[in-house]
Amino acid sequence: RVGVVMGSRSDFETMGGALDVLRDLGVAYEVRVLSAHRTPALLPTYGARAERLGLACIIAGAGGAAHLPGMLAAFTRVPVLGVPVQSRALSGQDSLLSIVQMPAGVPVATFAIGAAGAKNAALFAAAMLATTDGAVRARLDAFRAAQTQGVLNDPFFDGHPQAGEA
Amino acid sequence: RVGVVMGSRSDFETMGGALDVLRDLGVAYEVRVLSAHRTPALLPTYGARAERLGLACIIAGAGGAAHLPGMLAAFTRVPVLGVPVQSRALSGQDSLLSIVQMPAGVPVATFAIGAAGAKNAALFAAAMLATTDGAVRARLDAFRAAQTQGVLNDPFFDGHPQAGEA
Amino acid sequence: RVGVVMGSRSDFETMGGALDVLRDLGVAYEVRVLSAHRTPALLPTYGARAERLGLACIIAGAGGAAHLPGMLAAFTRVPVLGVPVQSRALSGQDSLLSIVQMPAGVPVATFAIGAAGAKNAALFAAAMLATTDGAVRARLDAFRAAQTQGVLNDPFFDGHPQAGEA
Amino acid sequence: RVGVVMGSRSDFETMGGALDVLRDLGVAYEVRVLSAHRTPALLPTYGARAERLGLACIIAGAGGAAHLPGMLAAFTRVPVLGVPVQSRALSGQDSLLSIVQMPAGVPVATFAIGAAGAKNAALFAAAMLATTDGAVRARLDAFRAAQTQGVLNDPFFDGHPQAGEA
Amino acid sequence: RVGVVMGSRSDFETMGGALDVLRDLGVAYEVRVLSAHRTPALLPTYGARAERLGLACIIAGAGGAAHLPGMLAAFTRVPVLGVPVQSRALSGQDSLLSIVQMPAGVPVATFAIGAAGAKNAALFAAAMLATTDGAVRARLDAFRAAQTQGVLNDPFFDGHPQAGEA
Amino acid sequence: RVGVVMGSRSDFETMGGALDVLRDLGVAYEVRVLSAHRTPALLPTYGARAERLGLACIIAGAGGAAHLPGMLAAFTRVPVLGVPVQSRALSGQDSLLSIVQMPAGVPVATFAIGAAGAKNAALFAAAMLATTDGAVRARLDAFRAAQTQGVLNDPFFDGHPQAGEA
Amino acid sequence: RVGVVMGSRSDFETMGGALDVLRDLGVAYEVRVLSAHRTPALLPTYGARAERLGLACIIAGAGGAAHLPGMLAAFTRVPVLGVPVQSRALSGQDSLLSIVQMPAGVPVATFAIGAAGAKNAALFAAAMLATTDGAVRARLDAFRAAQTQGVLNDPFFDGHPQAGEA
Amino acid sequence: RVGVVMGSRSDFETMGGALDVLRDLGVAYEVRVLSAHRTPALLPTYGARAERLGLACIIAGAGGAAHLPGMLAAFTRVPVLGVPVQSRALSGQDSLLSIVQMPAGVPVATFAIGAAGAKNAALFAAAMLATTDGAVRARLDAFRAAQTQGVLNDPFFDGHPQAGEA
Repeated sequence: RVGVVMGSRSDFETMGGALDVLRDLGVAYEVRVLSAHRTPALLPTYGARAERLGLACIIAGAGGAAHLPGMLAAFTRVPVLGVPVQSRALSGQDSLLSIVQMPAGVPVATFAIGAAGAKNAALFAAAMLATTDGAVRARLDAFRAAQTQGVLNDPFFDGHPQAGEA
Repeated sequence: RVGVVMGSRSDFETMGGALDVLRDLGVAYEVRVLSAHRTPALLPTYGARAERLGLACIIAGAGGAAHLPGMLAAFTRVPVLGVPVQSRALSGQDSLLSIVQMPAGVPVATFAIGAAGAKNAALFAAAMLATTDGAVRARLDAFRAAQTQGVLNDPFFDGHPQAGEA
Repeated sequence: RVGVVMGSRSDFETMGGALDVLRDLGVAYEVRVLSAHRTPALLPTYGARAERLGLACIIAGAGGAAHLPGMLAAFTRVPVLGVPVQSRALSGQDSLLSIVQMPAGVPVATFAIGAAGAKNAALFAAAMLATTDGAVRARLDAFRAAQTQGVLNDPFFDGHPQAGEA
Repeated sequence: RVGVVMGSRSDFETMGGALDVLRDLGVAYEVRVLSAHRTPALLPTYGARAERLGLACIIAGAGGAAHLPGMLAAFTRVPVLGVPVQSRALSGQDSLLSIVQMPAGVPVATFAIGAAGAKNAALFAAAMLATTDGAVRARLDAFRAAQTQGVLNDPFFDGHPQAGEA
Repeated sequence: RVGVVMGSRSDFETMGGALDVLRDLGVAYEVRVLSAHRTPALLPTYGARAERLGLACIIAGAGGAAHLPGMLAAFTRVPVLGVPVQSRALSGQDSLLSIVQMPAGVPVATFAIGAAGAKNAALFAAAMLATTDGAVRARLDAFRAAQTQGVLNDPFFDGHPQAGEA
Repeated sequence: RVGVVMGSRSDFETMGGALDVLRDLGVAYEVRVLSAHRTPALLPTYGARAERLGLACIIAGAGGAAHLPGMLAAFTRVPVLGVPVQSRALSGQDSLLSIVQMPAGVPVATFAIGAAGAKNAALFAAAMLATTDGAVRARLDAFRAAQTQGVLNDPFFDGHPQAGEA
Repeated sequence: RVGVVMGSRSDFETMGGALDVLRDLGVAYEVRVLSAHRTPALLPTYGARAERLGLACIIAGAGGAAHLPGMLAAFTRVPVLGVPVQSRALSGQDSLLSIVQMPAGVPVATFAIGAAGAKNAALFAAAMLATTDGAVRARLDAFRAAQTQGVLNDPFFDGHPQAGEA
Repeated sequence: RVGVVMGSRSDFETMGGALDVLRDLGVAYEVRVLSAHRTPALLPTYGARAERLGLACIIAGAGGAAHLPGMLAAFTRVPVLGVPVQSRALSGQDSLLSIVQMPAGVPVATFAIGAAGAKNAALFAAAMLATTDGAVRARLDAFRAAQTQGVLNDPFFDGHPQAGEA
């Protein structure tokens, strides 16, 4: 249902979190390494595949001069979710700008730099599906409720806030 | 079908482009000013409304310490698309980071700073709908084809590239 | 007297310094985890509580797209002091801009990124109280005098500056 | 009740908004040009005056290598609110960092770059006073309510959101 | 001999300077609009054409999330010279990082943001040709000599530097 | 055939990758430490040598206020390829801007910060040579094909993308 | 006594302020256009001249990849004062980093971006001379006293600070 | 002859390099911790002392919102050399801007962030003294010659550059 691609195997450390979230929310996915710069000929192929398979969206992670999300968005109408991988020298500022600053006409939905962005892209994919798929919606609602409860259960938050000694 | 909100009336100069795109692609929308900071009590109200109406997504534009997209995403499972409005002192760098750097758990799909981002959020909304709505898909495909043709028709690109005099 | 909140338990490493300062200066406080994004429904609740209890101020720490301080400021007139927690990819530049760049109308008093900011928010809270509370004023003056004396006592500074061998 | 200082007469364009807000909220103030670099000898004088007069706080605006707020905070325990004035080359990024990144021990409460920050510093000063002064609290509450109503009255927001033609 | 491409007609204001330099140095060129995002299918076509024609290099200008230079470099071994066009919100910082931060394996030679970069890309192309083409080398040497002489002829520089009145 | 210079011996950790690539592609090179600031008198000497030897290009790596590439470009018409070495405090942002932002008239072809840039400068040098040297062209084509195959051989990419469990 | 150089005639708008200050303080100077990139051969010549004439210092202004101050510092032991000229795309951030981030061994004393930096470089030159020249010291002291008096004379600062109407 | 001050004992790791250089070049110095924010009352005292002792200059290192160099420059005509200490969150970008962006009228000569800047401030101090002190000049010339020779002696640079195997 959802395609997950990344520019290099080393991006898996970041993108693995997206797969975990999709699995937890019961969203089917396929995953592959796909490099805008090293395998450019696969871009139109994968774009066509995404349309043929009726993928709900493509989650694409890349770092540095990160062209993968934007080029997939150029080759297919399937919604593309971009994850800026944290780069070595510039901490993902280059990745972020290379993904988010797309010109008018070809959008990429961009998420936070690094692991938080990968997880959130997966959550967003689930939220997209949840608008028409009741089962995903129920699992997403449960995830969000549990997340809220996790904060409420924090010993720091118990209706009796910890008082200073003063 | 799509909700469009903005933090201040002055954001309309930027966000108007999103409405134009939605209209051109035949996507129904509602629009309103909604301020995270000046009308915070409306955030849960609007989130609930979005779920009740079954909005496909919410496009939210804001500038500076732009909290509107993220707070709507906190109050509703409906997908939120954030548009960083170009701010006066920092040219939208504050808007961008305030929207895109959401923590894991609550995603906001972020687009480019300014008018390009507003148009692209609308195109992305259409692409989301296009996965299940054939009519929108057809109009989106036509838009993309026309956009491509616009480049191909450019007098600079006619199969006979302009040669230098050398 | 002072409320201290933070977006996540992991912010405690930063915010603990604020509690230490408050305790040292004899300022009563309560502390809790409160997440703008994961527990948004608590924002108005906590805002109302702050007014009901007559808190002198709220110290709120958060990182990344840090919306907690600004949203509390939206929900209550009680002064909010924001502490940008150092984030992983952008070292707190995102936290800082998300907190300090509030639009006209809803202020957040912002302090330095990280532990220095947490301590200074607590010192500022004490200074606010000191304008009407003589006991806090005395303890704050003692703290400041001791801090000054700490520099004066430095072996490098003894009225006989260390001379180079030249 | 509140002291307002600025590093140069040219900062008045920015800081004037603080005076307007204070006047509107019925908060007494005094205002003067005070330069950390050109009149450094006045820093301890003004700090002592602030304590002697019992000023509730000092609002200090400055641009570039903006040392005025931090140096006043060094010379007095009276709370200092810093406003980063938008600078020519760096748009106030230098002003912001010079004011907000104070080391642990000497806090400056910092607000947004430019006019929004000036207004918000004044609103924050009023909020500080409102914790003990019922008249200011009432005026501040009225200001906040009017501000909220201003959004609600926007023709874009009338309970009947404007629908797209689609 | 040299291919000049740009992502949009509006980039001509910047890229025109490259054409002027090529013309002045007697370097043949062809020019066209070619958009990575709006005409992605032309990327492999143009890459193949560049190899077939034996272009010495391709000068590619683009702004924002500027993927054109990098994608051409992915599709052809012909050397690609990238020119970051100054973008509206971020002044070309996004363009620069999107072009220069290419991952190891697929290089783009990057030049300054804006008009200076466009001229310099053309001068660099001429310098590449000059290593094997004596006529271009002579014209390039003459250009460089004239440029030096232009400074030497400045009335400020005449062997008798202007003395202050002191 | 290619000159490789670096501002300091410590830059070898970065620049070594360029030598590896040149060696792998069978491109002859010479290498030396050459400091714009500590051995400025060698700049014109090396520039003249480069022209006398007919070097195809000079690859110059430097960090911080990195003047080596630009000054070599000033002293010789031989094409200069600049590699911004990652600096300690600013992660190479200073190196990058000091190299890429050359004024119109004296170009430096700039590559990514750090090791990726060093390798890419070498690949670019090979691509320059490949336009007239069939043997280098063949080796470069083989390198690029192998690089592409490396991605295709990734177990993640086998025509049967890994499916999620959902 | 002081040499003033600038990378291009267009820098005069910025550097003119340095000349005004020198003239006002009775410091003799010579001024010329000297380009690190377009007239590199003059760098050692000018460095030698500076030593031969016994210039107290050289004030060098340049923009973008501003190499002029650092290269002069490499060619002469005479102290070099660098002024980062505000550049078009990056507002002088490139100029500043290219000048200030010199490696250990070859210092450049750097001042603020633009006109303030030019004036301050001249004031610093005067302060250097003032350590041994009583006449310059007296004029510098007078300048500083007048500058202080200018603030004290401001109608905003008259011992009777302007009170708010509240 | 030269005063060296630093905002905190922890700055010694950075500033120690300045003392080493001064000692090596036979320049007498005194050193002390002096905090703009924790010991502000010492600023005028130290400024007066510097003038009374006839210090050639003051080297001042500080980090974050680094006000020490600028405030000393405000309190004394003695030339101030500022060293931005690398800060934790922002790597010294805040320190640099807080020191270098002084307004017109009160200059601080600024050097690189961190240890390189500390050493260079000391070298600059020596260069200032060298204009009138032949002994320092001789030692400075020897230092610079040795530094140049260090590069020339590098095994990488021996007149027979290392050739690639190709």
